[in-house]
Amino acid sequence: MFYIIDILGTIAFAISGVLVAINKKMDLFGILIIGFVTAVGGGTLRDLLIGDTPVSWMKDITFTYVIIVSAIFAIVFRSKINYLRTSLFLFDTIGIGLYTLVGIEKGLNAELHPIICIALGTITASFGGVIRDILCNEIPVIFRKEIYATACILGGVTYFSLREFPIKDNIVFIIAGVVVIVVRLFAVKFKIALPRVYKD
Amino acid sequence: MFYIIDILGTIAFAISGVLVAINKKMDLFGILIIGFVTAVGGGTLRDLLIGDTPVSWMKDITFTYVIIVSAIFAIVFRSKINYLRTSLFLFDTIGIGLYTLVGIEKGLNAELHPIICIALGTITASFGGVIRDILCNEIPVIFRKEIYATACILGGVTYFSLREFPIKDNIVFIIAGVVVIVVRLFAVKFKIALPRVYKD
Amino acid sequence: MFYIIDILGTIAFAISGVLVAINKKMDLFGILIIGFVTAVGGGTLRDLLIGDTPVSWMKDITFTYVIIVSAIFAIVFRSKINYLRTSLFLFDTIGIGLYTLVGIEKGLNAELHPIICIALGTITASFGGVIRDILCNEIPVIFRKEIYATACILGGVTYFSLREFPIKDNIVFIIAGVVVIVVRLFAVKFKIALPRVYKD
Repeated sequence: MFYIIDILGTIAFAISGVLVAINKKMDLFGILIIGFVTAVGGGTLRDLLIGDTPVSWMKDITFTYVIIVSAIFAIVFRSKINYLRTSLFLFDTIGIGLYTLVGIEKGLNAELHPIICIALGTITASFGGVIRDILCNEIPVIFRKEIYATACILGGVTYFSLREFPIKDNIVFIIAGVVVIVVRLFAVKFKIALPRVYKD
Repeated sequence: MFYIIDILGTIAFAISGVLVAINKKMDLFGILIIGFVTAVGGGTLRDLLIGDTPVSWMKDITFTYVIIVSAIFAIVFRSKINYLRTSLFLFDTIGIGLYTLVGIEKGLNAELHPIICIALGTITASFGGVIRDILCNEIPVIFRKEIYATACILGGVTYFSLREFPIKDNIVFIIAGVVVIVVRLFAVKFKIALPRVYKD
Repeated sequence: MFYIIDILGTIAFAISGVLVAINKKMDLFGILIIGFVTAVGGGTLRDLLIGDTPVSWMKDITFTYVIIVSAIFAIVFRSKINYLRTSLFLFDTIGIGLYTLVGIEKGLNAELHPIICIALGTITASFGGVIRDILCNEIPVIFRKEIYATACILGGVTYFSLREFPIKDNIVFIIAGVVVIVVRLFAVKFKIALPRVYKD
């Protein structure tokens, strides 16, 4: 079940990377790399920071295949992909819910402080997009206008709050994941964004 | 004592990151991340390169708290922070003196060549700013016009030169740190910069 | 023999970095760092991803010396370096042939999947240039118009294909390296590039 969500999230992330790379007029190799980095970049940074190497995409070849197929699909059907926008957004949103939890769990296994675990969850879910934007020579979009990391952080806080209560671990996990997803959906639906801070 | 300097340096680095992020019109999350990365980025890269993981900010939660409080402070008082410019510059300068030595010591513990140790010291002190500038889509300022890394390198050279003499380790440490600080202060006061190299 | 090729490749990579940094009007420190990063960045990323730390340039000081001398040479003779363009291109091309194989071998030692090994070879050969371009605030050139990574990938595929046959390991290695070099030379000579993908 988790594995399927992971694959769906990977597909959504890879396709989002491919579309950005096409906009930047990259060649086939550049497009593939940006798709790849968007999909695995967050988990890679997480693994590097905690020292879990070789990083995870190197140990399970399935993700490489999924990303290559997704990239080819996105390139071929690039003009029709708008019709999939809703599905992709849903995959992406469910994906970040899961990735947040994967990052938190990896942090717990490494016996790190809850705040650091939440940071790892957020990194897993959102830094693929950050690396994508840097490689495309843009200021990362999640630093400017998206409720994205905030959803991950709120999900993480939910997770550690509920753990204080006598609730089964599985349930806590699912609730926290749902919080990430719901916050993100609400923020997008009602166009809620974090305030910017302006120089006075 | 060292710990207090470390905290003061972290505060100065975090605030410098926050101010750059505000200039770039980032949202609250972006500002916090840039503050965080500026403060811990150099030490993180050092830890990754020598394989000392989980990286150090993950093992001592104090720094996370210090950075969050500094970031909030900098956001709230952003219009008045000019009055603190001198204090912040001093914290920053003392901070890089210390960070250079921390990096060198980590290199020594890993039994690396003195030149590599100096490189690690310089990375610790200056790559937080490099990562900050990359995330803000700028060419890193220390590659263009600041005597910053040069101060770290001179401090490192001093350290390894003095070690050849029968001087107590503590004293060598303090002198090397002072060299970093003095070189940086002089360079800023007299507007000394490294020469650029122009295409003929 | 391999060591000499490695040194020649390092020289070519370092000089290419220095020339880009001069174009960007960096100061001496910036130029040195960009030269350094271009030369060792790919191998560093490879070592981080598989967890082989301290990363390799930290364990063999020779490369640091070679890069510093190359950088000084390139700065001093920057107006005459055009005469060396052909030699440098050859060094660079032979270098990526070797680096691809070094990356593949490191992947094999870590018992990774052949596709991951090829990815590691490509990263070793081409990500120094990617990091160089990011530090210089450009979209990496190999994502846009160079047959570079493609040559590495074809060499890697050759390597794993030939391993199926009863051919001596050394011979397989040399043929694969030659494939990288020949593909790159042909692509440059006949101005072959990967197709870009345009939005319809």
